[in-house]
Amino acid sequence: MPDHYTIGLDFGTESVRAALANVRKGEVIASAIYPYPDGVIYRTLPSNNHALPPDFALQNPADWLTGLEETIRQVMLGCDASPQLVIGLGIDFTACTILPTTADGKPLSDVDTFRNNPHAWVKLWKHHAAQPQADQVNELAKQRNEAWLSLYGGKISSEWVLPKALQIYQEAPEIYEAADCILEGVDWVVWQLTGRFARNACGAGYKANWHKVNGYPSAEFLDALKPGFGQFFQEKFAGEVVPPATCVGRLSQVWSERLGLPVGIPVAAGMIDAHAAMIGAGITKPHVMFMIMGTSTCHMLMAEKEERVPGISGVVEDGIVPGLFGYEAGQAGVGDIFAWFIESSVPPVYHAEANKRGITLHSLLSEKAALVDVGQSGLLALDWLNGCRTPLVSANLSGLLIGANLATTPEEIYRTLIEATAYGTRLIIETFIGKEISVDQILAGGGLTKNSFLMQIYADITEREIGVLSMPEVSALGAAMLASVAAGKSTGGYANLSEAAVHMRAPVSYTYKPRPETIPVYRRLYAEYIHLVDYFGRGGSPVMETLRQIRQESLGRQAGKR
Amino acid sequence: MPDHYTIGLDFGTESVRAALANVRKGEVIASAIYPYPDGVIYRTLPSNNHALPPDFALQNPADWLTGLEETIRQVMLGCDASPQLVIGLGIDFTACTILPTTADGKPLSDVDTFRNNPHAWVKLWKHHAAQPQADQVNELAKQRNEAWLSLYGGKISSEWVLPKALQIYQEAPEIYEAADCILEGVDWVVWQLTGRFARNACGAGYKANWHKVNGYPSAEFLDALKPGFGQFFQEKFAGEVVPPATCVGRLSQVWSERLGLPVGIPVAAGMIDAHAAMIGAGITKPHVMFMIMGTSTCHMLMAEKEERVPGISGVVEDGIVPGLFGYEAGQAGVGDIFAWFIESSVPPVYHAEANKRGITLHSLLSEKAALVDVGQSGLLALDWLNGCRTPLVSANLSGLLIGANLATTPEEIYRTLIEATAYGTRLIIETFIGKEISVDQILAGGGLTKNSFLMQIYADITEREIGVLSMPEVSALGAAMLASVAAGKSTGGYANLSEAAVHMRAPVSYTYKPRPETIPVYRRLYAEYIHLVDYFGRGGSPVMETLRQIRQESLGRQAGKR
Repeated sequence: MPDHYTIGLDFGTESVRAALANVRKGEVIASAIYPYPDGVIYRTLPSNNHALPPDFALQNPADWLTGLEETIRQVMLGCDASPQLVIGLGIDFTACTILPTTADGKPLSDVDTFRNNPHAWVKLWKHHAAQPQADQVNELAKQRNEAWLSLYGGKISSEWVLPKALQIYQEAPEIYEAADCILEGVDWVVWQLTGRFARNACGAGYKANWHKVNGYPSAEFLDALKPGFGQFFQEKFAGEVVPPATCVGRLSQVWSERLGLPVGIPVAAGMIDAHAAMIGAGITKPHVMFMIMGTSTCHMLMAEKEERVPGISGVVEDGIVPGLFGYEAGQAGVGDIFAWFIESSVPPVYHAEANKRGITLHSLLSEKAALVDVGQSGLLALDWLNGCRTPLVSANLSGLLIGANLATTPEEIYRTLIEATAYGTRLIIETFIGKEISVDQILAGGGLTKNSFLMQIYADITEREIGVLSMPEVSALGAAMLASVAAGKSTGGYANLSEAAVHMRAPVSYTYKPRPETIPVYRRLYAEYIHLVDYFGRGGSPVMETLRQIRQESLGRQAGKR
Repeated sequence: MPDHYTIGLDFGTESVRAALANVRKGEVIASAIYPYPDGVIYRTLPSNNHALPPDFALQNPADWLTGLEETIRQVMLGCDASPQLVIGLGIDFTACTILPTTADGKPLSDVDTFRNNPHAWVKLWKHHAAQPQADQVNELAKQRNEAWLSLYGGKISSEWVLPKALQIYQEAPEIYEAADCILEGVDWVVWQLTGRFARNACGAGYKANWHKVNGYPSAEFLDALKPGFGQFFQEKFAGEVVPPATCVGRLSQVWSERLGLPVGIPVAAGMIDAHAAMIGAGITKPHVMFMIMGTSTCHMLMAEKEERVPGISGVVEDGIVPGLFGYEAGQAGVGDIFAWFIESSVPPVYHAEANKRGITLHSLLSEKAALVDVGQSGLLALDWLNGCRTPLVSANLSGLLIGANLATTPEEIYRTLIEATAYGTRLIIETFIGKEISVDQILAGGGLTKNSFLMQIYADITEREIGVLSMPEVSALGAAMLASVAAGKSTGGYANLSEAAVHMRAPVSYTYKPRPETIPVYRRLYAEYIHLVDYFGRGGSPVMETLRQIRQESLGRQAGKR
């Protein structure tokens, strides 16, 4: 039997990446990247020169289709595999990234009447202009004690479906009216390829508050939010919700020709990119945590039961692997904190040394910080410079550094900030354990995993081995694995994701093991970290909130003067 | 009647400064500086090349006499005043700066037998090698509940007489044995000039735990400290204690000739340099605080009564002005904190801008920080990077910075550190008020007073006007005022320091007034500062102590490995 292949497409913020995976051997034999010509649209629409309001972040759906076509063409050109052996397509995507379309799937940004209206365009995940709507949703949901709220840690993000849709409803009623459908980009792409529309459970669950048993938030709630908005889910967000790896439809004749792939091959239900990476890492069973460590860190974990874990971003049945409850937790600032420190707090002599040696400041500081013994600096920090997501869900919290003296060095502070984020991860792990959801293994991916000094500290502080995946196409590979299951056993694919994982998962490139000699000291420091978390974050003292309040008033006074 | 003059001599750490003051008009008409040839002796004795132990800081008393002669010569050459019109000499000095001598005042470092023994030399105030002895003294005094201890805030410094003398006794018994007298440098210089020996009440009170009513710590205490050391004050530290501005003696024939000044003119009892500056500032009445703001800040204040004010460095009757109780309080780190920040935490772009504009980083950061509104940064700090002297007396406390976010800038942190030290000063003021010692006026001197941005924040936060003295010779002028009183009314001087102050005091060069609009916000921030002081410094939480403990253990482990 010849080798079969599936293609995974990973739609990111600035570009799309395709990966061609050998279904039996699991290797990615070719990959390609295509940057979106319109990129992220922050300032003016491609259709005119009107300035966009602040915090808008849009995309052009045409870029997606061009990118899809272009990367698949490149991938197939770049290898010996016959297109006839490709047995399926899978797609992952940024989320929540939504667009309004007509009943036949035409984006309203492609309709002449609406082309110049920003709300007709794709709202990218990082569109943050719906914060007032998110505040409204959170306040009312809390007030009404909506049952779904605690499945999302007690607070939803301005990035999600409800705030974004409500923003359209409030600020562009004509667009809302004209939209037959508002949907995730990934579901739209699948619809384009197959002619069939379905909503993927991952996106619906994590970003649109869908629950397998209870469905979406109620019409009563939405009407109380804004009269007339009550039928949003029925009228604009209808469609079957399907679990991951479901075959949504088959590649159409038109797209078969455009892509040079066999007509009728299965296209799998889409998935959020982070979650697809977890699949790519081969995690299909409960109690294996997957951390994506970058500017912020996302912690994913599956379990057999649904618990209201404090501060999680969401828990969704069928959200990652059918039949399991997928949990997503997170730290709001991680790499961002180190980047802030490097940018704002490192004196010239360090820059000069790094330049001279041709290494980055991160490398230099890591190298110097590695020479500092555990506990030697006398420093401790809280990792809340961007607020705290799990477990406290507060944007009013802020950074704290304690223990500095007149001999404190930049590398000591750098190390302390890294340690603080590792304590934050340990706290998330313990938050799961507190709900009797054990964490038996940890894998990690993302940019920060390249820093071995940092990863070692994470292993030491969590007292757990951490396996690192360094394959850049891990999300796309996950999408290709979804495709292999959508294709099914009969055509050379797999019966389920666990089977696919055995053959296709990305390899662990290195495993960090906790150093026993660090554990006693780190335990004591972690106890102090928890002490500070409790005091500043759990009602011991309102100092951080008060400082935030004073800050807001100051900014308000200045805005008033202008 | 012709103008009369007095000369003030200010013996500093690296040099001596002389100032010739017009007694009637108060002007300093000439001044001169002479750097000590041997400077501060840290590494090897001038007499041999043997390395000194760590933390030793010695001086050569010959440098003092040469400097005295040289600066007076220069001062008299540099003006039209006739030497015959000089009616007195006054001296201030660093303290505690002590030396062992023979019965006729010969320094043991000038005795051949002892020349190569470091303990025969002058121990400068910053000789910190007697810390073990200071620890012993503090521990035993606390254990025995010695009454004098709380007059010194519950802890004495390794810089003071008892630890330094005990160090000689323990480490160089032959020197201790040979010393007929151990005395402050200032008393030694007065002795040289006049042939008469007395101890100045300022030095005895602030540095040797002398009390006007109770005398020195008891022989029982000293014997318990170290058997055989009990008679230290009787045998080695005898001598009448005289209040400031007392005429100790008259200029000898020999010194009259060496200095070209009239024989027999009065020489006033010496004084510690900081306290002489207070006299120079014209403060001779209770309830006027004088702050000397530099690497650390010293707060002096007089009152009519003796109170055990928490954490003060000392309260001494007759310590500054006869008949009043002089209080000394302090912040352990002030300018040192800003210097640490500038050195360790400012990125190259700021350095480049400062260079380009030819200004210091302090100026640049002050300028940028002035554009930040009160409360805008959302930051708050504790000023304990060098521990806390008043009111908490703890070296185990450390710095704290709370409220940082990913947009926090260096100038915001710089401003916050300045504000923290100003809160620290407000806390000291309130500590006095809490003992019903009011603070009715504030004057300030020292290097930090040149920073108008900083001084304005101090006025805002303390909610008080702060008058700044910028005359560099203010200590020497104070010494000259002491001389004018020692000379007395009959020879053209004054009856007391208050009278002298009216005519001779240094002018206030600028008065900072609190800006009313800042007060409401600073009050709220100060309330949060106090909240953190109470929590971290007054038993709310042992985090800082625990971090210190962990740090000490780490350093111990490393030392063990070496």
